[in-house]
Amino acid sequence: MSTNNNISTTNILQYRNSDSQLQDDWICTEEPLEFRLPFLTATGDIEYKTLAITMRTPGQDFELARGFLYSEGIINSAEDISSFQYCKDRGEAGQRNSLEIQLTKPVPINSQSLDRRFTTYSSCGLCGKTSIQSLELQNPPTMDDQAGLIEPGLLKQLSATMLKQQPMFQQTGSAHASGLFDLSGNLVGLFEDIGRHNALDKLIGHFLQENPEQMKQSVLLVSGRASFELVQKTIMAGIPMLVSAGAPSSLAVVTAKRFNLTLIGFLRSSGFNVYHAPWRLKE
Amino acid sequence: MSTNNNISTTNILQYRNSDSQLQDDWICTEEPLEFRLPFLTATGDIEYKTLAITMRTPGQDFELARGFLYSEGIINSAEDISSFQYCKDRGEAGQRNSLEIQLTKPVPINSQSLDRRFTTYSSCGLCGKTSIQSLELQNPPTMDDQAGLIEPGLLKQLSATMLKQQPMFQQTGSAHASGLFDLSGNLVGLFEDIGRHNALDKLIGHFLQENPEQMKQSVLLVSGRASFELVQKTIMAGIPMLVSAGAPSSLAVVTAKRFNLTLIGFLRSSGFNVYHAPWRLKE
Repeated sequence: MSTNNNISTTNILQYRNSDSQLQDDWICTEEPLEFRLPFLTATGDIEYKTLAITMRTPGQDFELARGFLYSEGIINSAEDISSFQYCKDRGEAGQRNSLEIQLTKPVPINSQSLDRRFTTYSSCGLCGKTSIQSLELQNPPTMDDQAGLIEPGLLKQLSATMLKQQPMFQQTGSAHASGLFDLSGNLVGLFEDIGRHNALDKLIGHFLQENPEQMKQSVLLVSGRASFELVQKTIMAGIPMLVSAGAPSSLAVVTAKRFNLTLIGFLRSSGFNVYHAPWRLKE
Repeated sequence: MSTNNNISTTNILQYRNSDSQLQDDWICTEEPLEFRLPFLTATGDIEYKTLAITMRTPGQDFELARGFLYSEGIINSAEDISSFQYCKDRGEAGQRNSLEIQLTKPVPINSQSLDRRFTTYSSCGLCGKTSIQSLELQNPPTMDDQAGLIEPGLLKQLSATMLKQQPMFQQTGSAHASGLFDLSGNLVGLFEDIGRHNALDKLIGHFLQENPEQMKQSVLLVSGRASFELVQKTIMAGIPMLVSAGAPSSLAVVTAKRFNLTLIGFLRSSGFNVYHAPWRLKE
């Protein structure tokens, strides 16, 4: 197997009908990425510690880190990060897969923001109600109630538009994608990854830096299903409409209702299902 | 919304062509499940602590816990668990979503098995090599080299067989499934969940209790893609062949090669791709 950043190549035996033949094939690269952050110790010193490790497709690591930290409530804007640096003192793997993130203000150990993170992410409480309360504590932007944001007919075309812009998916048949569309149905940002939560973190991290206001006037399309985690990130980003190719979970629907997010599932060229807030669609 | 264990119902607005109408719809339930285990403290006392929380579809929680603990290397057999008990003193949510697992031998805090868990699971090391080394430390069963386990023609029918037995998927259009087949292509176990790692943990937990030897003479079919995590669990369970409806990741392929697992992707009625060890298929 050889790896060229986000795509790897391998030999396969391809069975078709009653024949089999050797072929070269492309597959998505999956490697860990470690986020190391400055923590403020009890004695007032600063110590870099591992906050999280995610299995991701390499590329756009800074966007991924920025989006992850923002949607977890660790940072409040792109300006809270002063710089990114791969760990040079941790061997070849560290230079590729360990990222030190300098913050303008170190994270106090056991700070409320970290407690929230562990509550919502690693250990999301004991019931849906707890998960939603944790998200309330992160104080997400209020959703604008504005009605009639986009034509239902435009929505049905978004999957076809996004599919044309997914190079990893076209090459491997497997990468997840998150795409941001403006209210005329134009694709303004597209991010791919082996993990769908990573694809969305990359998108949020990009727009947080380049144009945070864009997200409030946009529609987000995700390639897979809509779990609680994706709904949570969408709400934190202030995007008013989440559209998925698959189904939402029960907790995704309850959370969308609580935070006034328009949640749409099973997007096809022939139609879709609206789970909450259909008033953001034009009549 | 109302919830009846693994399926919830909600009202949706269904857009088809240029019409929209209100409908009742079924969606998969997603709720957290907390695993609480006995830890041995430095003073020799036993203290129940949270080991992990997973977002799962309720039902078959004991199978899920048993499979998770086994595939993470915390237990070595079903007999290492003496009983399961929902936490009655933690309110209504605790009675449904918090599970205390009594072990015949408490887990020493900072024990090697927990270090391994955190290495492979929460923080899988800094490169694929580290992830694979962690799995080696868990000492998975050696794969039998036996050739010609199953007919290629039988493989192509497995998806159709499994689809007929997926009640949650049929009702909601979204649940993931893991199915175990014997070498004649008969489905011997089928488990569904909103998370594909949970569906596989439930399957492993079930067979670990009922018939551990069955897994060594079987083919596993998973509904989604084959990530490192699913390959790792398959190897720990001693199942010699993993077949997925989608693509594997690069790390999944490297890991299958290291542990001699037959890895098959893109299963269709017309064919499939073999990423490693095609000799387990009949000529």
